[in-house]
Amino acid sequence: MNDLLIENASILDVKSGKVLEGSNIYISNGTIAGINVNKDCLQKVNLNDNLVIPGLINAHTHAAMTLLRSYADDLTLIDWLTNYIWPKEAQIINPETVYLGALIACYEMAKNGITTFVDMYFYEDMVASAAEEIGLRALIGEGVLSVPTPHAKGQKQGIENTKKLIEKYKDSDLISPIVTPHAPYTCSDELLRELTQIALEENIPLHIHLSESEKEFLDMQREKNLTPTKYLEKLEVFRAKTFVAHANYLTDMDISILKNHNVSVAHCPESNAKLASGICPVPKLLESGVNVALGTDGAASNNNLNIFGEMDFALKLQKIFSKNPQTLKALDALQMATSMGARAIFKDDIGSIEVGKKADFLVIDRENPSMIPGHNPVSDLVYSATPDCILSVCVNGRWIIKNKIEQFDKEKIIKLTKKLLKKYFS
Amino acid sequence: MNDLLIENASILDVKSGKVLEGSNIYISNGTIAGINVNKDCLQKVNLNDNLVIPGLINAHTHAAMTLLRSYADDLTLIDWLTNYIWPKEAQIINPETVYLGALIACYEMAKNGITTFVDMYFYEDMVASAAEEIGLRALIGEGVLSVPTPHAKGQKQGIENTKKLIEKYKDSDLISPIVTPHAPYTCSDELLRELTQIALEENIPLHIHLSESEKEFLDMQREKNLTPTKYLEKLEVFRAKTFVAHANYLTDMDISILKNHNVSVAHCPESNAKLASGICPVPKLLESGVNVALGTDGAASNNNLNIFGEMDFALKLQKIFSKNPQTLKALDALQMATSMGARAIFKDDIGSIEVGKKADFLVIDRENPSMIPGHNPVSDLVYSATPDCILSVCVNGRWIIKNKIEQFDKEKIIKLTKKLLKKYFS
Repeated sequence: MNDLLIENASILDVKSGKVLEGSNIYISNGTIAGINVNKDCLQKVNLNDNLVIPGLINAHTHAAMTLLRSYADDLTLIDWLTNYIWPKEAQIINPETVYLGALIACYEMAKNGITTFVDMYFYEDMVASAAEEIGLRALIGEGVLSVPTPHAKGQKQGIENTKKLIEKYKDSDLISPIVTPHAPYTCSDELLRELTQIALEENIPLHIHLSESEKEFLDMQREKNLTPTKYLEKLEVFRAKTFVAHANYLTDMDISILKNHNVSVAHCPESNAKLASGICPVPKLLESGVNVALGTDGAASNNNLNIFGEMDFALKLQKIFSKNPQTLKALDALQMATSMGARAIFKDDIGSIEVGKKADFLVIDRENPSMIPGHNPVSDLVYSATPDCILSVCVNGRWIIKNKIEQFDKEKIIKLTKKLLKKYFS
Repeated sequence: MNDLLIENASILDVKSGKVLEGSNIYISNGTIAGINVNKDCLQKVNLNDNLVIPGLINAHTHAAMTLLRSYADDLTLIDWLTNYIWPKEAQIINPETVYLGALIACYEMAKNGITTFVDMYFYEDMVASAAEEIGLRALIGEGVLSVPTPHAKGQKQGIENTKKLIEKYKDSDLISPIVTPHAPYTCSDELLRELTQIALEENIPLHIHLSESEKEFLDMQREKNLTPTKYLEKLEVFRAKTFVAHANYLTDMDISILKNHNVSVAHCPESNAKLASGICPVPKLLESGVNVALGTDGAASNNNLNIFGEMDFALKLQKIFSKNPQTLKALDALQMATSMGARAIFKDDIGSIEVGKKADFLVIDRENPSMIPGHNPVSDLVYSATPDCILSVCVNGRWIIKNKIEQFDKEKIIKLTKKLLKKYFS
């Protein structure tokens, strides 16, 4: 479709939380070209007053790890990683499995209303292929470590993989390459400096895990007498357009550093809770002016890729943890999942329903019982909606799901899954 | 339907967590009459290997409060109650509004796979009507307080309402009347004793809020020099078949009391978190042999009626709160939502897929992306499934939802909602 007129839409403005009833949206070449315009075009869709909200942004995941969903749960982090995840990854991760894992993840994310995701893993061109096949927008980065990975013997090859990825996708419409050193504790100084340089030269974002566990926080202080955040600042990593994942352990000084360098945090509350890693100080970050997005992390640790769930969980967790039910409001969560998510990942053309933005949006069924009686649609979206409320998903002006029907080949995904389960897990 | 054969089912045994592939289930007059029997009957349904799990049990809610979903959020408990909920309830609660609120709640619960719920509110015969109309199983209790309520000038009328309810529903198939004094801090000694006596005489369960907030816990100790739990024991309330809601503040002695009197806890983690009331010590309760069920509480405080969400939230909350990812396992949550839920509410004929139990079950789509690749279906149900995974819902051998199609009049609910919103909220 090139031109499309969406009629009788109730547009949710994520800045104010207000609903603009009886609106129309004119979409041209994947972009919102007009709102409430007097326009006629061949293709029209009547939304019958249903709600249009920006597509949700998953600011941190490892899509291919859906292959290991429910492979190992309810274990300590170290047991989970060293005895289950790493050995299995070493055995099965290759382009074929990454493609399938990402395909399942994109299927799940599409059903759950995620229209853009940020991915860090290996063989990321396979993740890009899966995202393109389903029709999702993705920021993809090759996870680079100073130790061997399933895709690189060492950091040199990891850097090469990053460069190839940038070259291949720098002009893509749906896919944006990013630079993703794995973490301060898995990357040498030299590697962090070199990847920062690439991000600066290419003017693309850099995304890294930061201060996820207490162990990481304490080890770094013992070894280098610096917090992980201070360490990255010292290496001048934050000269690049950076957003970090997790950030559960931060000093006041660390928060100032993030703020001063315009570094956003991709908060992954469910994964961090399931592994008991820690709780990101979101209220303090927001008060300090640090921008916060939401991420699911991978399905091996969460175990879902559902930003509706993260919005609800993030708020309820902060409320009970702070013993203050006024800590964070429903609109904060919706913004973290949309406009603040877009800002975090340096995509100023998504995250809200406005003229000039990409046509990435969800149609929400206002007659789903979770949305009625509907005194406050923002609260309903955050605290009661489930993916069952999603009628349609549109990315870049193209329907990915239309009136509950997936517009991609889901049978193929099921068939491939069965085949690969036999090959790698039986 | 009187006879039904379910073929090609993968039955989840909630005791072991194992899946019995390629099974059949023979249902006669609403009861599971055979599993893997050599039987032929007129009505057959092929499940194509999809998963059959027991219907989920919501052990504590106030269904009609869906009317006030998203009416007031992100407030302190006292502000929320005294400035929003109570004044609005005083204004709008009557048989007409309770019926509609409960109807919306039953619609939502059915979609979310809840087949049995426990309700405490006012005009409970209207809740029973709504449950029967949708086809859900319900335990209903008239909330009795020593102060005036929308349905009673004082405790005397509250007791009369309870007696009438018992009389009306004591021989019902889907509806079981219960006795529900509101809470230790809202009921006089005399009232608690009298309601306990009724529960004993009628041999029906007694359900009560207990130790929800720190204030309640501290006030009771200051005023009576007893914990709320010890206070109920002293009044001999626990002589009745009792299960309590919340139980966030418990001493070791309180836990022993619950254990010794076979009192189960309906744990409502999401509502308690959203209002920052407290965290129920579930691991300690289970270790001590106290049975725990899951409840959503009302949609005004949660704001959803979704036990899939509560299972996930309950476990992740306990893991991060205890800083121990091994605290509680996925199977614990599934049991709390099914077999332990049934035990809590004294219904030994539901909560598992076994011969002799009522045919209350869900059919789960194993090809929904949240359920694949499916290494561990129990983990998938607890940590990644959403209501979107539910294909069909059967209660008492009758399809409530069949292949995603509601078998009740949902248009009527939408129409009634619109009408009542105009009448009471505009």
